[in-house]
Amino acid sequence: MKGVILRQTDARLVDIAHDFPRQDVRAAAFWLREVLPEFPAATHLVVVDPGVGTDRAAIVVEVAGHRIVAPDNGVALPAARRLKERADGETEIQVYDIAYDDDTTASNTFHGRDVFAPAAARVHEADAVADASGISATDEWVDLQFPDPVFDEDSATGEVLVVDDFGNTITNIPGHVLDDRQRVTVNGESAPVRDAYAQMDSGERLVTVGSHGNVEFAVNQGRGDEAFDLSVGDSVSLTW
Amino acid sequence: MKGVILRQTDARLVDIAHDFPRQDVRAAAFWLREVLPEFPAATHLVVVDPGVGTDRAAIVVEVAGHRIVAPDNGVALPAARRLKERADGETEIQVYDIAYDDDTTASNTFHGRDVFAPAAARVHEADAVADASGISATDEWVDLQFPDPVFDEDSATGEVLVVDDFGNTITNIPGHVLDDRQRVTVNGESAPVRDAYAQMDSGERLVTVGSHGNVEFAVNQGRGDEAFDLSVGDSVSLTW
Amino acid sequence: MKGVILRQTDARLVDIAHDFPRQDVRAAAFWLREVLPEFPAATHLVVVDPGVGTDRAAIVVEVAGHRIVAPDNGVALPAARRLKERADGETEIQVYDIAYDDDTTASNTFHGRDVFAPAAARVHEADAVADASGISATDEWVDLQFPDPVFDEDSATGEVLVVDDFGNTITNIPGHVLDDRQRVTVNGESAPVRDAYAQMDSGERLVTVGSHGNVEFAVNQGRGDEAFDLSVGDSVSLTW
Repeated sequence: MKGVILRQTDARLVDIAHDFPRQDVRAAAFWLREVLPEFPAATHLVVVDPGVGTDRAAIVVEVAGHRIVAPDNGVALPAARRLKERADGETEIQVYDIAYDDDTTASNTFHGRDVFAPAAARVHEADAVADASGISATDEWVDLQFPDPVFDEDSATGEVLVVDDFGNTITNIPGHVLDDRQRVTVNGESAPVRDAYAQMDSGERLVTVGSHGNVEFAVNQGRGDEAFDLSVGDSVSLTW
Repeated sequence: MKGVILRQTDARLVDIAHDFPRQDVRAAAFWLREVLPEFPAATHLVVVDPGVGTDRAAIVVEVAGHRIVAPDNGVALPAARRLKERADGETEIQVYDIAYDDDTTASNTFHGRDVFAPAAARVHEADAVADASGISATDEWVDLQFPDPVFDEDSATGEVLVVDDFGNTITNIPGHVLDDRQRVTVNGESAPVRDAYAQMDSGERLVTVGSHGNVEFAVNQGRGDEAFDLSVGDSVSLTW
Repeated sequence: MKGVILRQTDARLVDIAHDFPRQDVRAAAFWLREVLPEFPAATHLVVVDPGVGTDRAAIVVEVAGHRIVAPDNGVALPAARRLKERADGETEIQVYDIAYDDDTTASNTFHGRDVFAPAAARVHEADAVADASGISATDEWVDLQFPDPVFDEDSATGEVLVVDDFGNTITNIPGHVLDDRQRVTVNGESAPVRDAYAQMDSGERLVTVGSHGNVEFAVNQGRGDEAFDLSVGDSVSLTW
C-alpha cells in the first residue's frame, strides 16, 4: 500500500497502527474515533475489510478537512462524528463513493493495495474530494454506532467496547459516573475506584477513567480483562 | 539501523515490515517479491540474515532503478527477477559486492547496523551503485528459486510457500488452475473454490486466488493453515 | 502522540520501537542506551511510564545535542550517560522539569498523548530547551544504574539485563572476558564460545559477544533464554 501511494504522490506517510485486531470493524472504529481527532487535517487510509471481494462499496468520508478512505462497513463513521463534535458542529459529514472495477483492476483479496491506496493517493492530491478521478458524492453508506449505556439512579449498564494491548478493558460508560466515588460494584463484585493505575499495588485491580473518558477496568502492571473476566461485547453492570 | 542511515543521509525512510518470520530467508524472499515491485525505484534495505558473522557476502542487487541491499543468501533475488519481468525484460540484474572488515568495523551479530545500513546510505547517495565506496560489481552470488509446480491433466502438485498473518496459506500453484471451477480436491479432501473470503460463511474454508495470483487456502474470518492442516514447505496436491 | 506532535510542528517522525516490554523501565533504558547514540542529535520521545497519573515528574534530558523527553523514572539516564561517553566527556548532562497540570489538562492514564508529546513538540521547536514553554532546569531526577558485574581471577558474576526478540539473553558482563576462550561454564554448565551464531549447528547453544559488546547466551536459529533457562534479572556466573 505504501509503494502504491508513493508511485502516485510524494505525500508524507505516517503509520498509525498495523495491529488493530484482525477483521474487527468495531475495534478499529473505536480506535480511529480516539486517534484521528488528534491529527491535523489529513487523508487517512483505513483497511479493516472483512468484506473484501464482495459488493461492499469503497468510500471517502470527509469532515472538518479530514478525508478518511475506507471500506463501506462503518469503520470510519464514529471517527467522523467525533471530528464533527470537535469542530463544534460547524462542519458536515460528506460521504463519497469510490468507483472500482472488481473484474479487471482489483484482486478479490487485497483492496488495500488495489482500491484503497490508489484512491487515497488521488484524494490526497485533489483540491476537492469530488475532483478525484472515480470519486463522487453519495448519500448512502453503512453506519456503525456504539451502543449507549443505560442509567439508573444507582447504576449504569453498558458493555465492553474494546480491550487494549495492556489488557485495559474499555466500556461505553462515561467516566463521570465515578466522580467522588471510592468503590463501585462491577457485575456484582466490589472494586476500588482510582485516578491512576499506580495508586494500587502491582497486580491489584481498579476501576478508573481511561484516556478516552470512559470507565475502564484495569490492573496495575497487569491485565484488567483477565482480573475482571471480561471480553469485548460483554455486558457490564456498574452499581454504587 | 535508522539512526546509522540518518547520520549519513537525509533519505526518506519508509518502513515496510519488521515482522517477517525470524531467520526465514524464503518467507522474506517471497514477501519482498510481492512488495518491492509496488514501490517506485528506491534503495531497499533487507536484513534477514541467519548467516551473520560468517563469511557470507553482503551485496547490492540492482534492477530497473531499484537497489536492494541485502545479505548474499538469495533473499533479494526473487524480487529482482519480478522487477525485471515488470520492466518487460528491458533491464538487467546487476549484483555488487559490499566490502567490509569483520575484524575491525563490524560486530558478528548485527550487520544490519554495522554493514548493511551504512552501505544502504552510501548506495542511496551514489549516482551509480559502483560509485559507492567499498562496492564493486560481481558475478557470483547465492540464488534462491521457488520450486515450480508440476501439472497433470487433472491435477497440479506444488507446495506451501508461506502462511500470512491471517493464516492464509499461499502456494506456488498459479491461480488460473481454479478458473471456472466450483470445487477442487486438496490433498484428498474436497473444498469449495470462491472469489472472495466473505463468499463463505464465517469459519468456513475455501480455495481462492490470493492477491499474489497464486492458489491460497483460507477460512473466512479464520485461519486456513489450521483448517487445511498445512505448514510452510508442505506438499499440496490439487485435483479437479 | 504522532497526531499531537504533527498539530504543533512539521518535525520528521522516525519510529524506533513500539514493542518494548510493557511497563519495563529497565528494558527500555537498556535498548535506548544501545539505540539513541546511533542517531544524529534529535528530540527523542520515550513513554514507558508505569507511574502515569502519580506525582512522578516529566523531564527532558539534554546531552550532546540530543533531547530526550521521558517520564522521570530513570529510563533516559543510561542512554544519556552513553551519549556523554561517546562525546568523549566533552558535554554535560542537563535535566529539565516539564510542568503540567494533572487536574486540568492531562488524563491520568495517557501522559504520552497529554504531557510528553506536546512537550516533545515544544522542545523540538525551541532553540534552547529552557526556552520551551513550561520547561525549566532542575537538579533532581530519578536515576537508573545497571549493576556492575563482579570479577574474580577465573570468573565473572553478573546478571541478565534483557532478552531480545530472538531469545538472545544479554548480560552486563563485558565481552572481553571471552577473548581467546573456546568454552566457558555458565552457572555450572559448559558451553562453547563462538564469534557468530551460525558457527554452531542449527539448534545448538553458544556464548558470544552481542552487538552491544556484552556477553550473550544464544542458540543458532533458536532461543538462548530457553536453552540456558535464564530470565531477566537472573544471576549469571561465568567461569573459565
